[in-house]
Amino acid sequence: MKANDQQILTIFGASGDLTYRKLVPAVYDLYMQNLLPECFAVLGVSRTKFTDEAFREKMANGIREFAKQPTEDEAKIASFLTMLYYEPIDTKSVEDYGRLKERLESIDSACQTGGNYIFYLSTPPSLYTIIPKNLAAHGLNEQSDCWRRLIIEKPFGYDLKSAQELNASLLEDYQEEQIYRIDHYLGKETVQNLLVTRFANLIYEPLWNRNYIERVEITSAESVGVGDRAGYYDDSGAMRDMIQNHLLQLVGMVAMEPPTVIESTAIRNEILKVFQALRPLSKEDIRNNVIRGQYVAAKVRGEQMNGYREENGVKEGSRTPTYVSMKFFIDNWRWGGVPFYIRTGKRLPTRVTEIVIHFKGAPHRLFPDPTGFEFPNRLIIRIQPDEGILLKFGMKVPGMGFKVERVNMDFHYSELSDAYLPSAYERLLLDSMLGDSTLFARGDAVEAAWEFIDPIIEAWDTDDSLPVFGYPAGTWGPEHADDLIEGEGTMWRYPCKNLADDGIYCEL
Amino acid sequence: MKANDQQILTIFGASGDLTYRKLVPAVYDLYMQNLLPECFAVLGVSRTKFTDEAFREKMANGIREFAKQPTEDEAKIASFLTMLYYEPIDTKSVEDYGRLKERLESIDSACQTGGNYIFYLSTPPSLYTIIPKNLAAHGLNEQSDCWRRLIIEKPFGYDLKSAQELNASLLEDYQEEQIYRIDHYLGKETVQNLLVTRFANLIYEPLWNRNYIERVEITSAESVGVGDRAGYYDDSGAMRDMIQNHLLQLVGMVAMEPPTVIESTAIRNEILKVFQALRPLSKEDIRNNVIRGQYVAAKVRGEQMNGYREENGVKEGSRTPTYVSMKFFIDNWRWGGVPFYIRTGKRLPTRVTEIVIHFKGAPHRLFPDPTGFEFPNRLIIRIQPDEGILLKFGMKVPGMGFKVERVNMDFHYSELSDAYLPSAYERLLLDSMLGDSTLFARGDAVEAAWEFIDPIIEAWDTDDSLPVFGYPAGTWGPEHADDLIEGEGTMWRYPCKNLADDGIYCEL
Repeated sequence: MKANDQQILTIFGASGDLTYRKLVPAVYDLYMQNLLPECFAVLGVSRTKFTDEAFREKMANGIREFAKQPTEDEAKIASFLTMLYYEPIDTKSVEDYGRLKERLESIDSACQTGGNYIFYLSTPPSLYTIIPKNLAAHGLNEQSDCWRRLIIEKPFGYDLKSAQELNASLLEDYQEEQIYRIDHYLGKETVQNLLVTRFANLIYEPLWNRNYIERVEITSAESVGVGDRAGYYDDSGAMRDMIQNHLLQLVGMVAMEPPTVIESTAIRNEILKVFQALRPLSKEDIRNNVIRGQYVAAKVRGEQMNGYREENGVKEGSRTPTYVSMKFFIDNWRWGGVPFYIRTGKRLPTRVTEIVIHFKGAPHRLFPDPTGFEFPNRLIIRIQPDEGILLKFGMKVPGMGFKVERVNMDFHYSELSDAYLPSAYERLLLDSMLGDSTLFARGDAVEAAWEFIDPIIEAWDTDDSLPVFGYPAGTWGPEHADDLIEGEGTMWRYPCKNLADDGIYCEL
Repeated sequence: MKANDQQILTIFGASGDLTYRKLVPAVYDLYMQNLLPECFAVLGVSRTKFTDEAFREKMANGIREFAKQPTEDEAKIASFLTMLYYEPIDTKSVEDYGRLKERLESIDSACQTGGNYIFYLSTPPSLYTIIPKNLAAHGLNEQSDCWRRLIIEKPFGYDLKSAQELNASLLEDYQEEQIYRIDHYLGKETVQNLLVTRFANLIYEPLWNRNYIERVEITSAESVGVGDRAGYYDDSGAMRDMIQNHLLQLVGMVAMEPPTVIESTAIRNEILKVFQALRPLSKEDIRNNVIRGQYVAAKVRGEQMNGYREENGVKEGSRTPTYVSMKFFIDNWRWGGVPFYIRTGKRLPTRVTEIVIHFKGAPHRLFPDPTGFEFPNRLIIRIQPDEGILLKFGMKVPGMGFKVERVNMDFHYSELSDAYLPSAYERLLLDSMLGDSTLFARGDAVEAAWEFIDPIIEAWDTDDSLPVFGYPAGTWGPEHADDLIEGEGTMWRYPCKNLADDGIYCEL
């Protein structure tokens, strides 16, 4: 659906990497698909001094390198670039916003964009209160015959208290409806497809509850280390960087009740209800059901990998987790007693995000099973890479008798061969232009997620008896993680093998 | 599982085609897999005068042409052939059975087969009462320190009355447990896999009922015409030849309750219960819900095909159906109100046997659907060819918004690449050697199936106002068949297109 409202997209932090690699290429992709409104402009803002021309030139390079749509047609790129503008300001200086306002008004009258402004804060989180305040000081938050929207990137706070403070500060000048909190996981096709899989098909929903599901497992693994983000990462860690936002959002999508309509408020209400139903973790739960780890040096396929503590910018003796796995429960009628297991980590053997629904075994074992294992059904929803869905089920082993063997029935998104998969930013930018906040995190849900996570972070910060496990780079994390899983002989699903050639598991 | 009891397999009609093409090659296949008992012999019996040597020579040719196992090793074949014997008798002459008995006893003492005899009646059905009686006259039905079994091929009677008479006649001299009624559909891997699919997986059974299933459709299509079987076929027709046995057996497997154990009596009890729950068809049902047809001449891919009435051996003005489709209900708690649709026919566009479970639509339509159609889920169980299972379900169309599209998730038996699929006869012969009658039809179920079918046959025989529809060879049968299906815009699943280049639908 094309964005119809004429509008200007203002990007704070326009000299940064995200603007260059993701945001402007995504806007270009929308342009190439004719999804932008007729009157439209992008205004880049940051401290760096660029002319419009210099900004356009830089962005042209970003487009050529990172856009998903074709970039052969120079005339098209040139025509797109005429919509880009740049204004250098000191984002901390409230006076500078007067100049920003004038510039917006001048583009506005030239481009007929009707006073509709989106402000995208691609900046350090420390500016999330300052920029909106400064915009408001010049009335740029006011919606009269026009609209004003803020887009902010994670992290939405550093813990519950700071998240509450951030929300409270924003809500002094803005309506909740004006605030678009980007969780780029929610922009992914396969995450959205979770809603369709569950609610456009009759066959899954009757099974989607404690009667038929044994446990739910969600994994988001990265094969890379912290790289040059170590400075930021060491203050954040896997719990804040991945669990509190991305993985809990996935939990929300998997566990939510069917919304009444596919519409922002209805869906976000249901996700909030899931977060509110998360059973709070006691001190004992934190000790027993949450595992943190740090990758340590190891050889992976012959190549020596640094341990986390050897990475540039990591504080000496850091206890920041690069790996977290945990078990918890959702206390409601649908999920009572069903354990949820989530895990994430860096320097794991592969990059994969997937949801595994482990169904219970059949109520009665009719067929002989030569391996001595039951074969419960599993539904695997692959978010990335190789997006698709896989069902594992029992079939008869061909031949005499009635032996049962587990086989796969699968669908790969790539089979829809002509399918153009928009990037997450493309999807989310368009949605914000359309005023559709379905796929953005709402303030109350963000706070509810922090409320669940906060006691863990606090315990880790204060109780030194809670271990940090070392796991060799290229492995699936601390060995203890398998002990989390209830049931004899059960463990995490391992999409591939450990890769470390050496390296030892240890307690750091 | 290897057959352990030493035994002799006696084949009546040993000079016939089935023995040559199917039975002896299947025994050879079992031999090659080391599944035959240590002491084993085959005694061929028929009126034709063969020596043992001549019979062996003929069977060697049948093996080379039709066995599934390798036939390169001449020494293996020769060794197998030493187990074959032949005895010419007049099967209608009770005296000749004295000679047969002597021959059996002589082989028995030479081969140490312990008096265990299987009698396979690969003969015209008119002999199904005569041969067992003559065997019994010489005590060959008696089981003392040994066992005696009868295998008979369909048709098991010509209508309810004749089926009851046949069973009663057999039961005068034999226990029901001694009688193995071959339905070669039940010997097919994928039919057996129906049991595994339903009862080894948790996820199907909760959906397998009136709450979630809209309708069930079973098709068994043949692309061939009657060929040189017209003489037999014209007295039988699609209802007796396919519906009463094969298709109703499939209905039984799809609709049955979970058996307590995978064991003959338990499974066959459940199938009988399904047949007993078939809602009897009233005169009006027969007029409205049962369609018969005959193929008429048409060009198929440029080749002129005869109509059924032009085939050699078909009586002039024959009203024997080469096509039947029908709708009926199973009156029990699981299936109340769910229509079952079954169809079979000759000279249809392709050879296919499949079961289609049409699930209901989602209870609430959340997503916009650009085509204006709902996309209910379907599970398609393909019996032949390309054995496998296919699930049709809705996925998100990649891109903006939440459009839904139907995609396929599938599994093909051929993916189990090293899988040796035994032939139906191989499976069924071995089961009868093992004394496992699970995959054989039981007398009471046969009668129950006839009880359901009988009123249709009778109405067709007596009420000339019931039409016989002509359908062009190479099409999916009478057009009226689509009117059977309840619900607006719904029709049969057509695995491929009509192929007739011309030809007209008509009433014959």
